[in-house]
Amino acid sequence: MDQKFFLGIGLAIVIVFAASSVYLNLQKNASDPQDHDMLYQVSTIDALMLGVYDGVRPVGELKQYGNFGIGTFDGLDGEMIMLDGVIYQVKDDGRVVTVTDSVTTPFATVTHFERDHTVVTTTPMNISSFTSTMEEQLPTGNMIYAVKIHGTFPFMKVRSVPAQVRPYPPLSVAVLNQSVYSYSDTTGTIVGFYTPVFFSGVNVPGYHLHYLSDDHEIGGHILDFTVPAGTAVFYDITPGFSMTLPTSGDFTGIDLSGDLREELSRVEK
Amino acid sequence: MDQKFFLGIGLAIVIVFAASSVYLNLQKNASDPQDHDMLYQVSTIDALMLGVYDGVRPVGELKQYGNFGIGTFDGLDGEMIMLDGVIYQVKDDGRVVTVTDSVTTPFATVTHFERDHTVVTTTPMNISSFTSTMEEQLPTGNMIYAVKIHGTFPFMKVRSVPAQVRPYPPLSVAVLNQSVYSYSDTTGTIVGFYTPVFFSGVNVPGYHLHYLSDDHEIGGHILDFTVPAGTAVFYDITPGFSMTLPTSGDFTGIDLSGDLREELSRVEK
Repeated sequence: MDQKFFLGIGLAIVIVFAASSVYLNLQKNASDPQDHDMLYQVSTIDALMLGVYDGVRPVGELKQYGNFGIGTFDGLDGEMIMLDGVIYQVKDDGRVVTVTDSVTTPFATVTHFERDHTVVTTTPMNISSFTSTMEEQLPTGNMIYAVKIHGTFPFMKVRSVPAQVRPYPPLSVAVLNQSVYSYSDTTGTIVGFYTPVFFSGVNVPGYHLHYLSDDHEIGGHILDFTVPAGTAVFYDITPGFSMTLPTSGDFTGIDLSGDLREELSRVEK
Repeated sequence: MDQKFFLGIGLAIVIVFAASSVYLNLQKNASDPQDHDMLYQVSTIDALMLGVYDGVRPVGELKQYGNFGIGTFDGLDGEMIMLDGVIYQVKDDGRVVTVTDSVTTPFATVTHFERDHTVVTTTPMNISSFTSTMEEQLPTGNMIYAVKIHGTFPFMKVRSVPAQVRPYPPLSVAVLNQSVYSYSDTTGTIVGFYTPVFFSGVNVPGYHLHYLSDDHEIGGHILDFTVPAGTAVFYDITPGFSMTLPTSGDFTGIDLSGDLREELSRVEK
């Protein structure tokens, strides 16, 4: 091997990497809006409302689209929280476990959380004063926001749902057997989304929030809480929306033409 | 330069290309569902209904997401047809022109058309018999389909809309000045989409079809037609949906909470 050989290798590597780099940068720019300001969703909330509980996507796949989100699992087996890229499952007995990537989900929404906007609360708020007050603080209601709140909450009331067996009942029936837990002075993170009213049928219009304690011992779908004054509410403005519809299973046969907004409101609260 | 120099270049190129190829393939697999079975949409149909006509995305950007689609242009300046990657504008005087990539759009839907499903018509159909008959032929109504029909149509009734000036009227008012053209025995392509009813507010539920003649002389938003017996209707099953919401301009201030389905139906037909 002489110098010319290595000169040849070096020159070729420089040329090929330069060309690859231009190509990859173009690719990156093309997909940037989707990677970083996109809510990615599996299936629709109305399909879940109508009892489409079979998982259609492995939860590991969600990690391609975000590190932050909420959802449920195959068979409606508990509440999902994805935080810092880790997926937690709140079982109906209140325990929190981490899940393997191969577990599937029938409904989930995730994004890469990047803080764009912060609102600091000025008074303590329960869930209904939070949702009405914080909606007024948003730059516009016609936008998707990921919502992240870390704090110590004097009151936190969450639910989880038991895994269902076929024939699957609708969600309004399944939640009749939900487990509800109330905690005091718990420190953790609220993880969720705000979607505009025109997402009706597709996602949960307004706020949809789950909770996970810092010690990963408790959590669930939030039914009520007290957010103390002086709490920073972080928003990620998310103009991109992406959804995968199931191409097989129960989804294809159900009647999704109804307006389930009132029923959804009862189920979620 | 001796043989060893070229051997060095050759070896380096093989190694670097092999490594790049593995990386690019992983990237490709990760984004495959979005690239090829995804409807990409700019803004929402209800925003257009309410007079949000300022373009928010250059039409050239649409080409990243598809080679086939429909929409309109900045200021509601005519009807858009994207076919085989070329973007055509049907002006309200009936002329068809191609547009440069920098022209913007306030609303457009595109995909990479790949035929998955074909239905051959057995009787001649007008628009209303087509939509009702062809809905029954779909594998499921809970899915997005891109729809492509090439043929010679005994009757084709299309409209285009004149560019609007501020203050923008709602679409129901703007279409009062639409131009309607009826053609006989025209050969061309019908380009459009079917979206499920749960896309209300976001897209046009049911069929939304535009037309472009093979000679690129005529086209527009289809109000009625005769599709002859024996015509092949091509469907692209499109389980992925992706949307970009405008983050500035009129979109952020309008009230998108209303149900505009009946008004939309009048405007579209």
